[in-house]
Amino acid sequence: MDRAWDELATAEGIARRATWDTTGKILGDDAAVVPDPGAPLTICADALVEGIHFDLRYWTPTQIGSKAVTVNISDLAAMAAQPLWVLSTIAAPKHFDVDRLLEGIEAGAARYGARLIGGDLTRAETVVISVTAIGSQLLPPLRRSGALPDDTVFVTGPLGLASVALERLSGAMIVDERTRLALLDPSARLNEGFAASRAGASAAIDISDGFALDLHRLANASGVGFEISHLPVAEGATRRDALGGGEDYELLFTAPDPSRVAEEFAKLGIKPPLMVGTVLADPEQRALEGEPLDPIGYRH
Amino acid sequence: MDRAWDELATAEGIARRATWDTTGKILGDDAAVVPDPGAPLTICADALVEGIHFDLRYWTPTQIGSKAVTVNISDLAAMAAQPLWVLSTIAAPKHFDVDRLLEGIEAGAARYGARLIGGDLTRAETVVISVTAIGSQLLPPLRRSGALPDDTVFVTGPLGLASVALERLSGAMIVDERTRLALLDPSARLNEGFAASRAGASAAIDISDGFALDLHRLANASGVGFEISHLPVAEGATRRDALGGGEDYELLFTAPDPSRVAEEFAKLGIKPPLMVGTVLADPEQRALEGEPLDPIGYRH
Repeated sequence: MDRAWDELATAEGIARRATWDTTGKILGDDAAVVPDPGAPLTICADALVEGIHFDLRYWTPTQIGSKAVTVNISDLAAMAAQPLWVLSTIAAPKHFDVDRLLEGIEAGAARYGARLIGGDLTRAETVVISVTAIGSQLLPPLRRSGALPDDTVFVTGPLGLASVALERLSGAMIVDERTRLALLDPSARLNEGFAASRAGASAAIDISDGFALDLHRLANASGVGFEISHLPVAEGATRRDALGGGEDYELLFTAPDPSRVAEEFAKLGIKPPLMVGTVLADPEQRALEGEPLDPIGYRH
Repeated sequence: MDRAWDELATAEGIARRATWDTTGKILGDDAAVVPDPGAPLTICADALVEGIHFDLRYWTPTQIGSKAVTVNISDLAAMAAQPLWVLSTIAAPKHFDVDRLLEGIEAGAARYGARLIGGDLTRAETVVISVTAIGSQLLPPLRRSGALPDDTVFVTGPLGLASVALERLSGAMIVDERTRLALLDPSARLNEGFAASRAGASAAIDISDGFALDLHRLANASGVGFEISHLPVAEGATRRDALGGGEDYELLFTAPDPSRVAEEFAKLGIKPPLMVGTVLADPEQRALEGEPLDPIGYRH
């Protein structure tokens, strides 16, 4: 590890790994200079902390790096923004394999068309990875606050598998590959965000903290209620996993016209989203299959 | 602290504190949307880690927040970029006063004309603050690699006081206010970066890791040597503090025309920089007052 650490022990170390050489890009300086994207910018930052978001017993550094990028790209996806650049600061003990972590960050960024352009590396007793993702807002941004009565509620895929993986891995139980990767290597629903925006979606949020909690957040921001008629539970997961397990990086969105939604998803050749319910005018009405639904979920 | 923690325990918590309401800005969503700045962007990220960069025995959370911003703005200053936006992820134990930290971040950003637009808060055993700063590159960017033979080497102020403060505070010794604040509340040399760029500076770097180390970095990037005829030691500091103490957020820059430099600094009403030496064509020649100068400094 010493070699990797020494090579990477300055901000330049991270910047030097950035392979992008488009005109205007400056590497190895105090900061990176990138060309004017010519559109509004969409920007978010999220950190992953050892012992809170990941456990080094069953995560590889590469997976941690890739996921640190994915959780941020998922936020851009929920806005329908095109990822451009990623920066990362890394705090880690000397024995930690920073080189693999950076490979994961680079691979994670490349997967969504973005590039690592800078960052910082420093020592710490536990691993803390912070990623900032910057995107270009070419499509109308999806907000949390736009849901209107009678809109249909969509979710981009079945939920709960990441939660099953977390329970099983932390209990040292056997877990199949598909379930394990739902937690360790999720995908951000970038194309789904684009399709939702093109389909005139009225609001969106990523379901990283749990379906119930994030649905309530969207409803709070929009001042509406909802009736969920169908909870999309992943095969192998329980209703509780799907409702409040968290770590599912699917998108939840609302849209007035389901046929336009089907059309735009088909155009991008991606799986159609699941229709799970309806937006209600009364913000007090928040139900799942006729029963009141509490905002259970994962608060770090 | 519980109240503060609960209020701030989501990314929305940080975003909600951002007071900016310029059209186009979206708060409390998965990501912030800001208007196209219409110029190249300059971006950097740096983290401050408890026990490495600060000690909670003599730092207030407000000072930590402000300094986390300043160290990033200093990198933008070294590029002659205008700060626009700041994001911060915060990992901290539950008892830590995150509210004061955020006040420090906001105040630090406001000091340089930037705004906090997003971030993330999570628990961790030690405090790790990561800040990303995004600026607009309206002036020609200052790189590390542009220094040319016969350029004059400038430093924006005397060095070593932060190092004195660190030694005294960590030894529980008495330290006067001016010395203490050199470490706890440094200023980024933003106007100095602008003036250097306007004066046709050929290269620049911020001296955060120590004069000697950062001077070598600039010389390495430019493929040149140097002869330093005058080491600018702050009153109360030793030559060793000034050479390799680190944490001095002054700028070091090179420029071909000292009279243009004097003129541009005067126009902005800021103290003229100190002429400390000359750039040499031979990259092997690296001397301080006739003696070889090693790249001593602070590597985190």
